[in-house]
Amino acid sequence: MDLTIDADRLRADLEANAAFGRVEYDDPEKRGRTNRTGSEANAAARDRLVERMEAAGLDVAVDEVGNVLGTWTPESADPEAAPVVSGSHLDSVPEGGIFDGPLGVYAALEAVRAMQAASVDPERPVGVVSFTEEEGSTFGNGLLGSSVATGETTLDEALASESDDGETLGEALDRIGYRGDDAIGPARWAAFYELHVEQDTVLEDAGADAGVVTTITGITHCEVAIEGEANHAGATAMGDRTDALAAASEFVLDVESAANAVVDESSASAVGTVGSLTVSPNATNVVPGRVDAGVDVRDVEAASMETIVSAARESLARLERERGVETSLERPFDVAPTPMSDRLREAAHAAATDAGRTAIDLHSGAAHDAMRVARVTDASLLFAPSRDGISHNPREWTDWADCAAATEVLAGALARVAVGGE
Amino acid sequence: MDLTIDADRLRADLEANAAFGRVEYDDPEKRGRTNRTGSEANAAARDRLVERMEAAGLDVAVDEVGNVLGTWTPESADPEAAPVVSGSHLDSVPEGGIFDGPLGVYAALEAVRAMQAASVDPERPVGVVSFTEEEGSTFGNGLLGSSVATGETTLDEALASESDDGETLGEALDRIGYRGDDAIGPARWAAFYELHVEQDTVLEDAGADAGVVTTITGITHCEVAIEGEANHAGATAMGDRTDALAAASEFVLDVESAANAVVDESSASAVGTVGSLTVSPNATNVVPGRVDAGVDVRDVEAASMETIVSAARESLARLERERGVETSLERPFDVAPTPMSDRLREAAHAAATDAGRTAIDLHSGAAHDAMRVARVTDASLLFAPSRDGISHNPREWTDWADCAAATEVLAGALARVAVGGE
Repeated sequence: MDLTIDADRLRADLEANAAFGRVEYDDPEKRGRTNRTGSEANAAARDRLVERMEAAGLDVAVDEVGNVLGTWTPESADPEAAPVVSGSHLDSVPEGGIFDGPLGVYAALEAVRAMQAASVDPERPVGVVSFTEEEGSTFGNGLLGSSVATGETTLDEALASESDDGETLGEALDRIGYRGDDAIGPARWAAFYELHVEQDTVLEDAGADAGVVTTITGITHCEVAIEGEANHAGATAMGDRTDALAAASEFVLDVESAANAVVDESSASAVGTVGSLTVSPNATNVVPGRVDAGVDVRDVEAASMETIVSAARESLARLERERGVETSLERPFDVAPTPMSDRLREAAHAAATDAGRTAIDLHSGAAHDAMRVARVTDASLLFAPSRDGISHNPREWTDWADCAAATEVLAGALARVAVGGE
Repeated sequence: MDLTIDADRLRADLEANAAFGRVEYDDPEKRGRTNRTGSEANAAARDRLVERMEAAGLDVAVDEVGNVLGTWTPESADPEAAPVVSGSHLDSVPEGGIFDGPLGVYAALEAVRAMQAASVDPERPVGVVSFTEEEGSTFGNGLLGSSVATGETTLDEALASESDDGETLGEALDRIGYRGDDAIGPARWAAFYELHVEQDTVLEDAGADAGVVTTITGITHCEVAIEGEANHAGATAMGDRTDALAAASEFVLDVESAANAVVDESSASAVGTVGSLTVSPNATNVVPGRVDAGVDVRDVEAASMETIVSAARESLARLERERGVETSLERPFDVAPTPMSDRLREAAHAAATDAGRTAIDLHSGAAHDAMRVARVTDASLLFAPSRDGISHNPREWTDWADCAAATEVLAGALARVAVGGE
């Protein structure tokens, strides 16, 4: 197979998508967008994707949670055969980058167009998918669309989730016209590939064109509350305070230390982050009475994750004893590490070799829709290099040539699996 | 003089005032209110004060920044003589207590009524004042009304200050009908007394009825920014992070340590607080990129304050070196310690002795309107006991009998100064 990626066409698609929810910065190094599920920007990004899918001859389906699937059924294919699908998501975190998500959607579409141009004759339909609310920035839970499509989350629960504005996902999808009634059925897909930016520097450091993920790390989120006593910052002597923020500061540093210790001692891929922290009443002249914090813990080894969570619990117990605060820890989100399909990994490496591209194995520290799809069918996650590993940030960047190179590997892998049944 | 405080009437006034902006709690130990300057609750509290002033025969004046002054000019007084004035404020912090401010306003009114009932014949008019926006919770700067009345802040600047809703103070006062055109002129007052709840436990621990403040501590506010790099919490290895919240956590603990060290080594009254902290982007799955923090530093000794601010600066310099963050510290608010009038302190002690009440000297860690008035005339600050020292909190409490006892001391002091020219 000689698959040629049209790098300019791919770039044009990504640039056009980047305009939806664009955030302007004085710094030319920053290219940001805020594309929240259900926003006008999100509706416009979806509309354009549908238009581009239809322009490439794909049949577009929208499911009840707003996932969009475009399917190419060439004459060579058995229309009833299980399709090979690839894609990612279009939503972003607030002021996120322009590649995180859209690269995987438009690379999949470009791969289909390359197959069409190269007169590849797949035996199976080839699909391009965009999952709803991967980031969880608006309706609270990440991987939402892929969770519903794979049966991890019920449709009712997903549609009832609310944004900070009090609107439900169901209402938001109705409003933008993306509450469909098709089934996209990942359980009957023959295979799923997701291409995503790496968000770390392993590929950059190795000078590799593509990464082939072995395992997606497990993720736990902990919600922590620390209650002290709000009091007048001037009239309350230092010895008479129960300062919730001072206690929370020790907690943040304890979580960081615990993760660093695991990295040093057993598993270099472990991470522990206090990403959110809300102080109440949050006035300069009031001793903080309460802090709510969100903790994110990940690793490819479940045992490392438990070590960090245990350290967080021990930190809170110590702060109760030493500082007199009251604390609680809940764990609303807990997903075990997810291995990727060996069959699809091998096809990706073979495709890279065919194309003269370098591909290396690595793990993914971030959750991706492929993690959900892996529950119901063979799934594979491929990475393109990220400059300096920066993401969830307007400085996120992947050179256009790197986008095209990784897309070439994706296209080759998809073609192998769709044609040969590899 | 035999001044009898009507404890039930004082309580009724305070209970009625507590209803404006009341916050309901399941816990019967909590009595909270949110009385923001310019709110409906604030308008209602002002209306009732004016009504109660007029019912007691006071002439009511409202100045251009909404300060309310009610003046009693008995036949015994020279109407042109410099008045003796007492009062405090009616606004509160969000979910503040019911005594912080209103006690001083209604105690002053009760003192006037007690003088009237006792047929005291003052040689000077006696005024009751309520200053606008003492807390600074809505328009950003505390002591706002007293700052304008004493020339510390210009009227234009005050009226242009904006709430989070984007309304200016001038607009808010117009809306609630409290942008007056009278002058209340603290510079020509013969003396000013403010009664306030202590907000600490010195009186409670000593079993004293009233506190007579020697010095109001100086106050510095520092605005601190710590910039790291926002990044994906899962995909960014521990060693590759510049976590603004982890850095800020060290800063919070450094400020606390510096204040504790000053307390241990030189000045027990010193305090240092990081009261506010805002994390950006503040998502559980993103390494924090930026933290903004508000620091409050106070003491009766200016040198102690500088020691703590220097330690804060050193902490930031260390974090720049050790964690690679960028930091800044601004100091938008800086007031030196303010001694109170010896003449008025002596009158307060004499009044306490006359009334068979115990009064002790102490300092004030909190800023009060008396701090501003002291710039232009003799001022004195008296304290009533606070249960457990709690304030800026719905658990703030002063027993009704303690309110009355402290009001008796206030009334005696006012009468001495108004009658004898003491």
